[in-house]
Amino acid sequence: MTAPTETEEKELQEFYADLDKVALTPLWTITKDLLTATPRPKAKPWLWPARTYRPLAQRAVRLVPVERGGERRVLSLVNPGLAGAPYAAGTLWGAVQCLGPGETAPAHRHTPGAIRFVLEGEGVFTTVNGDACDMYPGDLVLTPSWAWHDHQGGGETGMLWFDGLDVPMVQALDAIFFEPHPLDSQPVDDRNASERTYAGRPGRFAEGALGGGPETPLAPVSSPLLVYRWADVDERLSALAEADPDAASAEIEYTNPETGTAVLPTLSCHALRVFAGRTTAPRRITGNRVYVVHEGAGHSVIDGQRFDWEKGDMFAVPSWSVAEHHADVRADMFAIGDAPVLRALGLYREAPAEQQPVTSVFTPLTGDGA
Amino acid sequence: MTAPTETEEKELQEFYADLDKVALTPLWTITKDLLTATPRPKAKPWLWPARTYRPLAQRAVRLVPVERGGERRVLSLVNPGLAGAPYAAGTLWGAVQCLGPGETAPAHRHTPGAIRFVLEGEGVFTTVNGDACDMYPGDLVLTPSWAWHDHQGGGETGMLWFDGLDVPMVQALDAIFFEPHPLDSQPVDDRNASERTYAGRPGRFAEGALGGGPETPLAPVSSPLLVYRWADVDERLSALAEADPDAASAEIEYTNPETGTAVLPTLSCHALRVFAGRTTAPRRITGNRVYVVHEGAGHSVIDGQRFDWEKGDMFAVPSWSVAEHHADVRADMFAIGDAPVLRALGLYREAPAEQQPVTSVFTPLTGDGA
Amino acid sequence: MTAPTETEEKELQEFYADLDKVALTPLWTITKDLLTATPRPKAKPWLWPARTYRPLAQRAVRLVPVERGGERRVLSLVNPGLAGAPYAAGTLWGAVQCLGPGETAPAHRHTPGAIRFVLEGEGVFTTVNGDACDMYPGDLVLTPSWAWHDHQGGGETGMLWFDGLDVPMVQALDAIFFEPHPLDSQPVDDRNASERTYAGRPGRFAEGALGGGPETPLAPVSSPLLVYRWADVDERLSALAEADPDAASAEIEYTNPETGTAVLPTLSCHALRVFAGRTTAPRRITGNRVYVVHEGAGHSVIDGQRFDWEKGDMFAVPSWSVAEHHADVRADMFAIGDAPVLRALGLYREAPAEQQPVTSVFTPLTGDGA
Amino acid sequence: MTAPTETEEKELQEFYADLDKVALTPLWTITKDLLTATPRPKAKPWLWPARTYRPLAQRAVRLVPVERGGERRVLSLVNPGLAGAPYAAGTLWGAVQCLGPGETAPAHRHTPGAIRFVLEGEGVFTTVNGDACDMYPGDLVLTPSWAWHDHQGGGETGMLWFDGLDVPMVQALDAIFFEPHPLDSQPVDDRNASERTYAGRPGRFAEGALGGGPETPLAPVSSPLLVYRWADVDERLSALAEADPDAASAEIEYTNPETGTAVLPTLSCHALRVFAGRTTAPRRITGNRVYVVHEGAGHSVIDGQRFDWEKGDMFAVPSWSVAEHHADVRADMFAIGDAPVLRALGLYREAPAEQQPVTSVFTPLTGDGA
Repeated sequence: MTAPTETEEKELQEFYADLDKVALTPLWTITKDLLTATPRPKAKPWLWPARTYRPLAQRAVRLVPVERGGERRVLSLVNPGLAGAPYAAGTLWGAVQCLGPGETAPAHRHTPGAIRFVLEGEGVFTTVNGDACDMYPGDLVLTPSWAWHDHQGGGETGMLWFDGLDVPMVQALDAIFFEPHPLDSQPVDDRNASERTYAGRPGRFAEGALGGGPETPLAPVSSPLLVYRWADVDERLSALAEADPDAASAEIEYTNPETGTAVLPTLSCHALRVFAGRTTAPRRITGNRVYVVHEGAGHSVIDGQRFDWEKGDMFAVPSWSVAEHHADVRADMFAIGDAPVLRALGLYREAPAEQQPVTSVFTPLTGDGA
Repeated sequence: MTAPTETEEKELQEFYADLDKVALTPLWTITKDLLTATPRPKAKPWLWPARTYRPLAQRAVRLVPVERGGERRVLSLVNPGLAGAPYAAGTLWGAVQCLGPGETAPAHRHTPGAIRFVLEGEGVFTTVNGDACDMYPGDLVLTPSWAWHDHQGGGETGMLWFDGLDVPMVQALDAIFFEPHPLDSQPVDDRNASERTYAGRPGRFAEGALGGGPETPLAPVSSPLLVYRWADVDERLSALAEADPDAASAEIEYTNPETGTAVLPTLSCHALRVFAGRTTAPRRITGNRVYVVHEGAGHSVIDGQRFDWEKGDMFAVPSWSVAEHHADVRADMFAIGDAPVLRALGLYREAPAEQQPVTSVFTPLTGDGA
Repeated sequence: MTAPTETEEKELQEFYADLDKVALTPLWTITKDLLTATPRPKAKPWLWPARTYRPLAQRAVRLVPVERGGERRVLSLVNPGLAGAPYAAGTLWGAVQCLGPGETAPAHRHTPGAIRFVLEGEGVFTTVNGDACDMYPGDLVLTPSWAWHDHQGGGETGMLWFDGLDVPMVQALDAIFFEPHPLDSQPVDDRNASERTYAGRPGRFAEGALGGGPETPLAPVSSPLLVYRWADVDERLSALAEADPDAASAEIEYTNPETGTAVLPTLSCHALRVFAGRTTAPRRITGNRVYVVHEGAGHSVIDGQRFDWEKGDMFAVPSWSVAEHHADVRADMFAIGDAPVLRALGLYREAPAEQQPVTSVFTPLTGDGA
Repeated sequence: MTAPTETEEKELQEFYADLDKVALTPLWTITKDLLTATPRPKAKPWLWPARTYRPLAQRAVRLVPVERGGERRVLSLVNPGLAGAPYAAGTLWGAVQCLGPGETAPAHRHTPGAIRFVLEGEGVFTTVNGDACDMYPGDLVLTPSWAWHDHQGGGETGMLWFDGLDVPMVQALDAIFFEPHPLDSQPVDDRNASERTYAGRPGRFAEGALGGGPETPLAPVSSPLLVYRWADVDERLSALAEADPDAASAEIEYTNPETGTAVLPTLSCHALRVFAGRTTAPRRITGNRVYVVHEGAGHSVIDGQRFDWEKGDMFAVPSWSVAEHHADVRADMFAIGDAPVLRALGLYREAPAEQQPVTSVFTPLTGDGA
């Protein structure tokens, strides 16, 4: 394409102005930014350290009541690439929720689906559509789309857990619905009922890495099992380690025991154990992920940037970045990802990735004020 | 919740500032805007008239070559609610594409899936993975995700067609991939091959309204049939009219002849015929839609605002708005929607809606310069 | 600059990623969009017709009380180019304010300075720092930065006026302060006191076009005269017309009678009379402007787009656009502009402009619902 | 205001929707976010360490040529509060510019005014409207609005300097103009001519803190003196220290020797010396500032957050924050601010401030990769 003459350039500028006047825009001027060779997530790789959010969670307990209005005492992870939106990555909401002793986070329901992964504390249970599910550190509790749920803290310590939600996706689809329950706490019909029914099923877990799990392309329904205990996860990871003592890591997906697919139509949950001194193979996949360090310490390298982490830290891995994880001492991580959506829409992909030189070290923002 | 004292208020403001410093944000201050009772799409109901875009498309043909670089001569519908993003609605790309006589829009592929609905002209064919598909006014042509495609204009008039894409959703999922073909035009292996194979199948169409079509919740694959001729659509609509002469309208979905589901995993396509002097029942569903008026004239009422339309006009109906359509003379409309995604993720909903009083009349922006 | 090799390109992309990680960005990739040859305002030329806003203002009076909380019953002009910001142009707030019979808009003060231009109605007065100023159609009333002000409606009809403020500039300077008065209405010390003192002064008006008025580069203080009556404006415009019967138009600036400079440090106010059948010379200046049609009918051409207007209509002219005004019947317009700021900072400019061919006609959005 | 009934609420929502349809918006729903009691800058206090930007500047020299196109090899400070805009604070551009040995940054001019403060290196001169100004570490060089300027590096080491510009303000005023010079380097008419003429003048500096300097409210013109040498600054600061040995700090403003006002109509420049072991009084003023540490080490406390700094570090202090500076060893800082604009528009303010408890410590993002 030869450069336009001055007259042509003027004509073109007038044409663009005339398009703009009637709410049209020329594609050819924006193609490059719109149709990129590979994904360019706005979210950045980022890490939120436990030593930062823990004292702030305690201040929240002291300062902010849990009541109708705000509904939940939740500190949301804000990825600085997302122009102020309260999301950990482009498609994923991540947050720390805290409930003091004897408090109740009131009952409501919403179309976004949620998972809870318990960080610390005791004595809390989450009631999901009448089934009161006890929560202990390391447990995963599901509150699927449009299920009534409230959290009650009967214990003496209160509790801290990780909240993972699909809010950004449901928001992008213009499909947010929310409804408060007429009562602060919904009636409890039974206790750990789903667990009694399904916890013995073998299909609660499947081997496989985040994104690249079971070939089943879709999770059309949410899992009927609402609680996955850490002891069971630990047992599975140990069995995998025993089966392949040379592996750098073991990974399982939490699955719907009836279908073997992801726990929610929009979110998959994984547990990854990296063995001391070893490094997982670098991976590049479509889809965003948020990791929570359950135990251990080490670092991850994401697109050449090193993120050092320890127990309780959370970090975001954006779509199509190259990521690998190294454990200094044996490390267990919990992770959520949007792979079920990508698979359902035929957009899931992987590419080969090589081990990366570290070009920079991430320094987390901290609040260790004197 | 009683109002905080001045000291408490100050402590709270300091707490919020401290959260902000470490990339955390309190949920309770944003819950109301985030978790709304019902969807609040940013996109507005909007209409782009044919009398506005047609002369601009002609200017584009005169001023802008179709070549590597911009790749396509496309005028995108810009919904003024979307802060400058070139989308017709929050989840849908809509545009007018034009190809002059003898021109070629070069071969490429991308993860966003596309449909083309021919507005006017002749002599153009679209090659999809080697199958050259002839295009005539009223035809629907599919170029599924990651399929190679180019458009070639052999005729004397050039052609104008509507482009519908899922770009905003693939973008929100951080899953855009794009690749130019090494050749400007890919090799043609066959001509209208998919049509020969599938065009006789009864499952190419299904009765039913946009969003509320077949109960099959998901279209896991794209349709192998790449072209749907208007003559066949017309025949189906006429048959429906004959079967129920009192109906206000007849509506069919274009479907995958092998599975009976939507034509793409992300988009469904519909044809709606409204009979002269009649009005469709008002509907309120989740999901965005873009309509193209193929023939006839009338108006739609969307959330109380009246949009008058005629042949060639395009308009956007945002999620959860109440919409009804009235024909002055028999009107045929083509429409795309994101319902397959909402169904796949369990987010599809309908609510009863009543006929609406008209509270305002939309005046389209026009470019009828003297 | 020769094209980089693949290795160089990869190195460059890694470098950009590393910059991004530490909150730095390369200038050379954004220079073209940042340092443009001439201004590229995001705001578009736009028109808000009186027949649209008037019935809505009446609905506002019926539906919305004027009370502490919202403070003012104001409908703000939203320029669709500004991504949802409630501004008429990049630097100017424009709005319609309405007060019903017997209502009071409570006393407050803020750093943004404001001007009021009365559209219709009677019986309202604005108290500014204790001086109660009566308002009649066509009058200009000033409420300078940080001056206490409230509006009280004693009459039987209520009133409609145009509000012009410098809010976007004060916002961009991170200098917004606001304070409610302890009383709903501040004590009235005197009535039309500033008018009695200054209204006889010859320096209340100066001949000259918007932007290109008196050479005095700066208005360091607000005018002590708070009210300018339309009768005086009319007299000046008539005198100018008599002095030059062949002129297409006459224009004066409202000025500080003590200094001869703009009425506020941030805003200048003008009155423009265009004679029947004539067209003003096209002008291109830096600075945004908002016009209010006081009497008459005609059209303006802004960057080739025609805007037809009549009594009460308001329209925005963005910086560096070419604008000319044509009267079908004698037309009087009131206008505000940001020229004092541009002059104070040495950024005011003019360029020669030629009469423009009309390439499109603006169709205003209307609400004439049945 | 009593809560509206359901019918009233519905009527109100319809009213808001109708306003939205015609590009109007109700003020009373946004007043609280718009007219805040005190300024709420979006920019955050932030620090960019020299140990982070210095190796990146070296990589830039290696990877990126300085040529027509990108024009300048500049790394811009990106304040993470500003949604991706390349600004150090809401009104201020801050950046690191680097020129390799023998390179030339081509001649151009633009309406934004700029100042350069030399960080390290030698052999570079900046030609401003024909006057070639030599640059040495610690020197301030002005390139006022619309002055032709190019930078040439004749030495063997190259140079690193801080760029301070008023780009965000000129951008917000829709008044950006840019023009490349026909030649890569403009003709040099003289060498250090402005310095010879004005350097002996006593009025080049004035005592006083940033924002609260000379009472002259406005700098209507740029300084004719284009270079201020560090030796002269050092001498003045030493004299002030001698005059008041108990002071915690000494501060001077660089001034126009002809008028005693700020060096540019939009920017003021200051030098602040804090004595070892001492802390400046906390200050709260309107206006944003960016500091560059010329020598020494210490920390600043900004709204309760501690920022540790050393030689070469840069940090942003947003409008209306409380800021104080502490030196561990004697520290010299250079700073720019937007006070001249705030003064010109009557928006400059100060408030009393108390010494603050440190509630958090800022951890800078670093790139010390292995």
